[in-house]
Amino acid sequence: MNNVAEMGARRAQVAAALQQVLPARAVLSAPEDTRPYECDGLAAYRQLPMIVVLPDSEAQVLAVLKVCRELGVPVVPRGAGTGLSGGAMPIAAGVVLSTARLNRIVRMDAYARTAVVQPGVRNLAISEAAAAHGLYYAPDPSSQIACTIGGNVAENSGGVHCLKYGLTVHNVLRVRVATIDGELVELGGEALDAPGLDLLSVFIGSEGMLGIVTEVTVKLVPKPAVARVIMASFDEVLKSCHAVAALIAAGIIPAGLEMMDQTSSRMVEPFVKAGYDTEAAAILLCEADGTEEEVEEDIARMTAVLNTAGAIAIAVSRSEAERLKFWSGRKNAFPAAGRISPDYYCMDGTIPRKRLGQVLAGIAAMEARYGLRCANVFHAGDGNLHPLILFNANIPDEFHRAEAFGAEILALCVEVGGTITGEHGVGIEKIDSMCVQFAPAELEAFFSVKRGFDPHGLLNPDKAIPTLHRCAEFGKLRVSGGALPFPHLERF
Amino acid sequence: MNNVAEMGARRAQVAAALQQVLPARAVLSAPEDTRPYECDGLAAYRQLPMIVVLPDSEAQVLAVLKVCRELGVPVVPRGAGTGLSGGAMPIAAGVVLSTARLNRIVRMDAYARTAVVQPGVRNLAISEAAAAHGLYYAPDPSSQIACTIGGNVAENSGGVHCLKYGLTVHNVLRVRVATIDGELVELGGEALDAPGLDLLSVFIGSEGMLGIVTEVTVKLVPKPAVARVIMASFDEVLKSCHAVAALIAAGIIPAGLEMMDQTSSRMVEPFVKAGYDTEAAAILLCEADGTEEEVEEDIARMTAVLNTAGAIAIAVSRSEAERLKFWSGRKNAFPAAGRISPDYYCMDGTIPRKRLGQVLAGIAAMEARYGLRCANVFHAGDGNLHPLILFNANIPDEFHRAEAFGAEILALCVEVGGTITGEHGVGIEKIDSMCVQFAPAELEAFFSVKRGFDPHGLLNPDKAIPTLHRCAEFGKLRVSGGALPFPHLERF
Repeated sequence: MNNVAEMGARRAQVAAALQQVLPARAVLSAPEDTRPYECDGLAAYRQLPMIVVLPDSEAQVLAVLKVCRELGVPVVPRGAGTGLSGGAMPIAAGVVLSTARLNRIVRMDAYARTAVVQPGVRNLAISEAAAAHGLYYAPDPSSQIACTIGGNVAENSGGVHCLKYGLTVHNVLRVRVATIDGELVELGGEALDAPGLDLLSVFIGSEGMLGIVTEVTVKLVPKPAVARVIMASFDEVLKSCHAVAALIAAGIIPAGLEMMDQTSSRMVEPFVKAGYDTEAAAILLCEADGTEEEVEEDIARMTAVLNTAGAIAIAVSRSEAERLKFWSGRKNAFPAAGRISPDYYCMDGTIPRKRLGQVLAGIAAMEARYGLRCANVFHAGDGNLHPLILFNANIPDEFHRAEAFGAEILALCVEVGGTITGEHGVGIEKIDSMCVQFAPAELEAFFSVKRGFDPHGLLNPDKAIPTLHRCAEFGKLRVSGGALPFPHLERF
Repeated sequence: MNNVAEMGARRAQVAAALQQVLPARAVLSAPEDTRPYECDGLAAYRQLPMIVVLPDSEAQVLAVLKVCRELGVPVVPRGAGTGLSGGAMPIAAGVVLSTARLNRIVRMDAYARTAVVQPGVRNLAISEAAAAHGLYYAPDPSSQIACTIGGNVAENSGGVHCLKYGLTVHNVLRVRVATIDGELVELGGEALDAPGLDLLSVFIGSEGMLGIVTEVTVKLVPKPAVARVIMASFDEVLKSCHAVAALIAAGIIPAGLEMMDQTSSRMVEPFVKAGYDTEAAAILLCEADGTEEEVEEDIARMTAVLNTAGAIAIAVSRSEAERLKFWSGRKNAFPAAGRISPDYYCMDGTIPRKRLGQVLAGIAAMEARYGLRCANVFHAGDGNLHPLILFNANIPDEFHRAEAFGAEILALCVEVGGTITGEHGVGIEKIDSMCVQFAPAELEAFFSVKRGFDPHGLLNPDKAIPTLHRCAEFGKLRVSGGALPFPHLERF
């Protein structure tokens, strides 16, 4: 639909149909109204949507899907738009379905430790509402003040505490979903296990491709009585990697276990004044939470392991204020990168923990090769790297070098048995890297599930899962070093 | 295919095709050879298969699937045949694919704490092999000496320690699967999270309907230095239920938390002499594991909570021998039921923990109504009930009353927000109860995934997911008390 007049007629047709089923203020079609929706956190890519709708009830969501199904209009669901992989990037001829008005906490059950919320409720708002009962919702992405639980479900979001408390998939009991067929499906339940296929796990992390969440039941956990964090300094990055392995091998599951290399701590310290040891090659932040006695014991055990692993200095937070100060540097690493570098590109690869040293050495070698600096600040306990590639988009070629650097990091992650994303999702950003990660049979398995839920491909099309045609064009159709035979390759 | 001659010709045709691709001893077709495969642990239902195959390599598995695909023969996968829901029940015109010869431990990585094993490796054999490294595989179904990891994956098996350590789905990192299309697909990976749809979780618990597992990577965990178990007695069942809730509410996750009512303890004690308090209305077994200091502290905290909850007596195991003695009664509850009753019917419903008291009271009322006794011995911490309905199949009508009693228990589980199975699976046993659990749109969602993996319905057909036609005949097409609208019901 390249023709402007055709496009305008189509917009008018779809908007009229949507206005039949929604209040007038819930259908936006003028460019000045739809402009705020043209990108998400991956702001390098922008596209004005044809129409934005803001339903405020499950019935309205179903009505929107019915219109889109009947008129064949693609639907891109959107939470708060904080996603980093372009999962909410609009489609020119499509509708953006914002969950912003589905923002009610339906029910809180302190005894069962659950909350039932609509998808547009902010992550932090759940914990704020639960605080009266001494409870909170554990997964805490850095964007938790803004991001919504519906977006968390779409991306299977993590956070600094997910080593101990799990990702979104481990903290959601049930979702209620409107399908493109106009049906409501409940996946999961309040009991520990359910019969039938585990479609709850498939749905969580499916990036808006299978249905629209209309309600989520989350687990709540008790707020720990006390938490303290250790900052341990190392004179070699490799020693800090070994310390991570040693902590886990000692049977300790820290509430958070984060690593920052010297580039990161020097980037952050002048800005945040978190008290970081900027002389160290790497620092680890290692948190314990629980009762006073448990935390005391855990801190003692962690300290012993860190010392044995070669820590050159150890500081333990002496107050809640100091604990928050130690974390503030970590949590502000991305904004700090923006202060010292005109641009940065944040990667999100996950690797087996034992490969940390090898991959960090690989990234250091790439820095020299691409002539770009990379700050490493990440969820070490999970093996979830967030290399920040620093570049200046105004210098010819730097953007392309940064992109190639990022793609090579992800390829290295896959090579050592890891994956191309830990918590930010695939969206449009990583879609070519999916060709590196998966073989045709695996991509076809994803599509077969996608077709089951969305036979006409109307829900967030062209995100998250590349077509085999796209992979072939990208030149990376994985044939897996001979490990996996694909006798039927030609039929794709 | 009712005609005996036709049946014989078909058997000869399929056997000949299979013998082309397998060693002669790996294809069984004579009734005297296939007899051992006519049932699994749900021995009330029996059916001789047409043919049994025992491949001993991934290539042979693929070859078997190719023959079956080309000839349109249904395939029923089978591990050790210990399943309790008839998931491995043969089909008269089908092939049973036994994984018994795929029994090699491929690789053990003590540093990464993983083991790569073939599907026919026994659950306990993994822990035995890992013991040299101080590690073990946590999920421990009662049948662990015999059952295989492939069967555990198919059923998403649990065990007494899954409250703390999780079900199979929480302890498997990756599966390699041969699909009916003749492809090999790897689901999951060694890193914490993976992009794409979470098909690993869908596959685990899919009861052999999506593909044949050819390799499994499991997590291993360190063997705790010490474990001790508390036996707490209560004079009312309801108080023991409240004690379970109080333990969890106190932030304690016991390594095991099991309940036995008086019927169970009196059934077991004369047989096992575990030292149970047979005067108590209910006993709880509550285990702590970890370092000596951790266990001491946990036992003290648990004891305090149990006392506050009204325990009338508390005993703590004083040695490893005594700990095993306390557990031996629990682990032998099913055989003990066989000693005091000619027959028993073991149910497997899971409910939100807070509903334990209500559901146990409901079961007590049903005992009076059906005129049958029911022993309750179960994973209280998980809310996973295993009511054992005692009956005598030789007394006219008792079998039917037991069946109706069981179905009513499961309906009650669903009513309070629970599910019809915790760990035994659906198989053929619970297939009608699936109509009570799920609405048409949900069953259709399951089938859409099933069709994606197995378009011609050759893999373990007619198990686990009922057709809507079957539910309609059973008279239980759930329309969900008006909670879920199904405007398109007529199209099914």
